[in-house]
Amino acid sequence: MKIALLGSGNVATHLGKALQLAGHHVIQVWSRTEEHSKRLGEILSISYTSDLSLLSGEADLYILSVTDDYIIDIASKFPFKQKLLVHTSGSSSLDIRGISGVFYPIQTFSRQKEVDFSNIPIAIEGKDESVADLLSNLALSITTKVIRLNSEQRKALHVAAVFACNFSNHLYAVADSILRNQNLDFDLIVPLVAETTEKIKSNPPASVQTGPAIRKDQITLDSHLQFLEKHSELKELYKLLSQSIINFERKA
Amino acid sequence: MKIALLGSGNVATHLGKALQLAGHHVIQVWSRTEEHSKRLGEILSISYTSDLSLLSGEADLYILSVTDDYIIDIASKFPFKQKLLVHTSGSSSLDIRGISGVFYPIQTFSRQKEVDFSNIPIAIEGKDESVADLLSNLALSITTKVIRLNSEQRKALHVAAVFACNFSNHLYAVADSILRNQNLDFDLIVPLVAETTEKIKSNPPASVQTGPAIRKDQITLDSHLQFLEKHSELKELYKLLSQSIINFERKA
Repeated sequence: MKIALLGSGNVATHLGKALQLAGHHVIQVWSRTEEHSKRLGEILSISYTSDLSLLSGEADLYILSVTDDYIIDIASKFPFKQKLLVHTSGSSSLDIRGISGVFYPIQTFSRQKEVDFSNIPIAIEGKDESVADLLSNLALSITTKVIRLNSEQRKALHVAAVFACNFSNHLYAVADSILRNQNLDFDLIVPLVAETTEKIKSNPPASVQTGPAIRKDQITLDSHLQFLEKHSELKELYKLLSQSIINFERKA
Repeated sequence: MKIALLGSGNVATHLGKALQLAGHHVIQVWSRTEEHSKRLGEILSISYTSDLSLLSGEADLYILSVTDDYIIDIASKFPFKQKLLVHTSGSSSLDIRGISGVFYPIQTFSRQKEVDFSNIPIAIEGKDESVADLLSNLALSITTKVIRLNSEQRKALHVAAVFACNFSNHLYAVADSILRNQNLDFDLIVPLVAETTEKIKSNPPASVQTGPAIRKDQITLDSHLQFLEKHSELKELYKLLSQSIINFERKA
């Protein structure tokens, strides 16, 4: 399949590499910033442009990987109304003028770090069956885990990812700040974090919950709240999360 | 060193194995429950008892690994007032009658899963220097990461661990419930969770924060809160965590 990439960030970069590896013909990269389009063009050894009017009309599929804020704008300026344009966002709507589908790799990408796409689930959504089929087949050429979603499911997936990843990372940042306040290194708890996430690979998370809240260990809970007395925001977080753990157990 | 174990749970089991592996003479295990003391006694091929009055007086060190609620009770009944008794708890005080020190492996243990102690940090606290020295040397015989703490630091460490591990695990449980509501499998986001925790092994957590809150992407934040409309507790958590991410960035 001939594919053009619109965007030059981490998703476009890693996806471009994975598509080439799978034997697809990535023919061009466009990015608003000439320098960025050049960078990715050179990485993939393909032509590049920062001018939408110079976009090649030869591709079968145009994959738009830009930050959510620009999807509507760029989709509206996309010059080939008969061609397939899809975005890669977990949170943007399918109902955007010019967009025919969603090709959403459920992973967070960093520039420096190489990625093995074969383990990354890709969520597919299409305006019609034929688009969904085409995107599913494309996804199956780079990963073993492909799932078709509707928009409600994709939103649930994105909200769940915010809880499990963005919010967890923030809790690591909170832990880091508590430790630094006592001249302790975050490395001290990294093995504990690693073990916690190891467990959920083979157990439902609620079934491996540990800590003072699930034990209803009020003495420890009180002593921790006392410790956080001067940090009203962290204290509030501690209370709400502990209460939520207790409520979850009741419902389970 | 001759060591006796008081307790037969996951900490006592894994610690007992690690101490034997390091060549220490683990001479006896005591547990309130005869069956449990027998189980661990057989695993370690050593004598066992559920009767404190049958505890051997021959050990140089008695390691008390029971749930926090029982530490005070058992320490008060410990029959050898001249002998060293230490507990392994992250949250219990050093100021407990009968307790001379703390030997706290900073890890969560499961019965089924074998553990490589050499990567597990052990936090040491002693009533005096000689106890701290003895415990540090013992710790260094089973791990490369030993840290001496005071009680305030140990509390900080425990609170940090609650945020980074117990609360993160709860957020995984929340994500799991959101996904299940839409007939989606938690496995879909496990690679994302793994990558999130991989990043913090080499970066300060706050520096790799991603998601709508740190981007101040109000459209996505609103749409997620709308999605959580019927789940007031989760909505509250989402709001508080998002606000905390934004506040943290301001302070940084």
